[in-house]
Amino acid sequence: MSLSAYLSTSSLPDRLAPTLDDLRDRIDTRLAELLPPPADEHDQIAAAMHHGVLAPGKRIRPLLMLLVGRGLGHESKALLDLSCAVEMVHAASLFLDDMPCMDNARLRRGRLAVHARYGEDVAMLGAVALLSHACCIVAGVPALSGTQRAQLVSVLCEAVGANGLVRGQYRDLREGALERPAGEIASANQQKTGSLFAAAFDMVAIAAGAEDSTRSCLRAAAVDLGHAFQLRDDLEDGADAQITITKDRNKDAGKSTMVALLGRDAVQELLDNHLILAETRLRQALPADDGAVTLLRTAFRPPPRRPFQPCTAALKLQA
Amino acid sequence: MSLSAYLSTSSLPDRLAPTLDDLRDRIDTRLAELLPPPADEHDQIAAAMHHGVLAPGKRIRPLLMLLVGRGLGHESKALLDLSCAVEMVHAASLFLDDMPCMDNARLRRGRLAVHARYGEDVAMLGAVALLSHACCIVAGVPALSGTQRAQLVSVLCEAVGANGLVRGQYRDLREGALERPAGEIASANQQKTGSLFAAAFDMVAIAAGAEDSTRSCLRAAAVDLGHAFQLRDDLEDGADAQITITKDRNKDAGKSTMVALLGRDAVQELLDNHLILAETRLRQALPADDGAVTLLRTAFRPPPRRPFQPCTAALKLQA
Repeated sequence: MSLSAYLSTSSLPDRLAPTLDDLRDRIDTRLAELLPPPADEHDQIAAAMHHGVLAPGKRIRPLLMLLVGRGLGHESKALLDLSCAVEMVHAASLFLDDMPCMDNARLRRGRLAVHARYGEDVAMLGAVALLSHACCIVAGVPALSGTQRAQLVSVLCEAVGANGLVRGQYRDLREGALERPAGEIASANQQKTGSLFAAAFDMVAIAAGAEDSTRSCLRAAAVDLGHAFQLRDDLEDGADAQITITKDRNKDAGKSTMVALLGRDAVQELLDNHLILAETRLRQALPADDGAVTLLRTAFRPPPRRPFQPCTAALKLQA
Repeated sequence: MSLSAYLSTSSLPDRLAPTLDDLRDRIDTRLAELLPPPADEHDQIAAAMHHGVLAPGKRIRPLLMLLVGRGLGHESKALLDLSCAVEMVHAASLFLDDMPCMDNARLRRGRLAVHARYGEDVAMLGAVALLSHACCIVAGVPALSGTQRAQLVSVLCEAVGANGLVRGQYRDLREGALERPAGEIASANQQKTGSLFAAAFDMVAIAAGAEDSTRSCLRAAAVDLGHAFQLRDDLEDGADAQITITKDRNKDAGKSTMVALLGRDAVQELLDNHLILAETRLRQALPADDGAVTLLRTAFRPPPRRPFQPCTAALKLQA
């Protein structure tokens, strides 16, 4: 099971929706600018990076970073670049999660997964290239001090490594089929999803030169957000929601997810609790702003309970 | 075909051999200290990182970095850590090179390759964890300024990414079976091998605060060294050398290597030329020291021409 969100901005307050559309456009434009151009017409690595990163996604992490930045009174080209670097890291994690030896998914963001389109070797190399590129962007981001840039690299790479995304994905793969208590599932979810959210918020705080108390508050909000995000993903994977199919579904069948252990209603309640905590902490950190708070409330609202209608095109791709 | 060297220090001048043994011990001790400890007894990611990184290797990159550092009058704990980070990046590249969708090798450094021992998922995640960990080490290396640390991350990650190791490995995989002119093979070799050598030497120069002219000189030496290294690897893969088998052989069969294109004698001459250039540039950059020069001359001496005797244990592993 992989990270993803299918938030709809259609139900956002009118005053926020144009802002988000504008921010998403800026993110997409900058992502395209920052990706390395193909070395030549045979350069499948660059093609895979573009295919995966620029596929239609909701850009939830970079959007939240920009909104949190605004809440801290910090808007800058540097922050836009940092948010793009985080999105690249996220995309790289999806390249790998979808591989046959991992979740074996063939559909992602409404497109063929990178390994299905370009081959496993290109997907693997493309992921490494993306991670490296993201680090280069962070290490060289303009207008920040060397100390800030080095600190930003540390925060991002710790979130990826042996105690972050990597360990979360490993636990999901290897322990997911075993019976686990809720605490174990929650801690794996935190590594798999929460670590990059926490790094993303921390990076905004570092770039904005925020005080330690604000930084702690933002990290705590991100941890709850990570839990909420994964719980929502689990609820969606249950496939009784009528949403556009953009990635493989039912990848959690047989896995010891929170939904399997506690049931959908209890998970919905848990999700609500994490959202309340995340909101509270975000309001503490950003007293003058509610853009980030409103976005996350909308993004994580429960998926509608309607009979599942499989998308024929998606099923064909999975065949 | 993957990066490797099987230099023997037995023929080094007596005055240098104990130094190298000492340096190699320090590198191995520090590598073990720097690797993340296992989270618990089931932590296969940490186990794979230890298995791959601490496998008996010649540590040619970190050794050269420490020797070049000495030549610049710079010895520090920071440089030792940087050299370990480069070795981790190298090890990560081997995890991936050996995967079934890449070179499909089962033997590496006298041990089972990581994917063969721990599974493809762990090998892939372990490689990502190693790369991230290496960046964390570099970004947080003590006693250097923030600007130096950020610059070091940039240099290392550029060497890995879409124009470095990744692209070299891709070209080797996808173009290796095609007829290519010598220039194309040489440029792919430079990306696959030379890029990390160049980054390693550049990192020493940055850590030592060397002047730009010295830095350029070292980078140029590293480029020639990279060519020499890959040519030696190609000669070894031809399997008429009687050396201890520590990795899969004959992986180049059918590939458009320099040996296939030009023949062994011409390749040997080319290797010698690159070594002379590398030596000249190293002597220019390090006028007071010949440790690095002597090591590289010994490390890259031509493999002896004797009938190939396959190692039965290795062949069993490859079966």
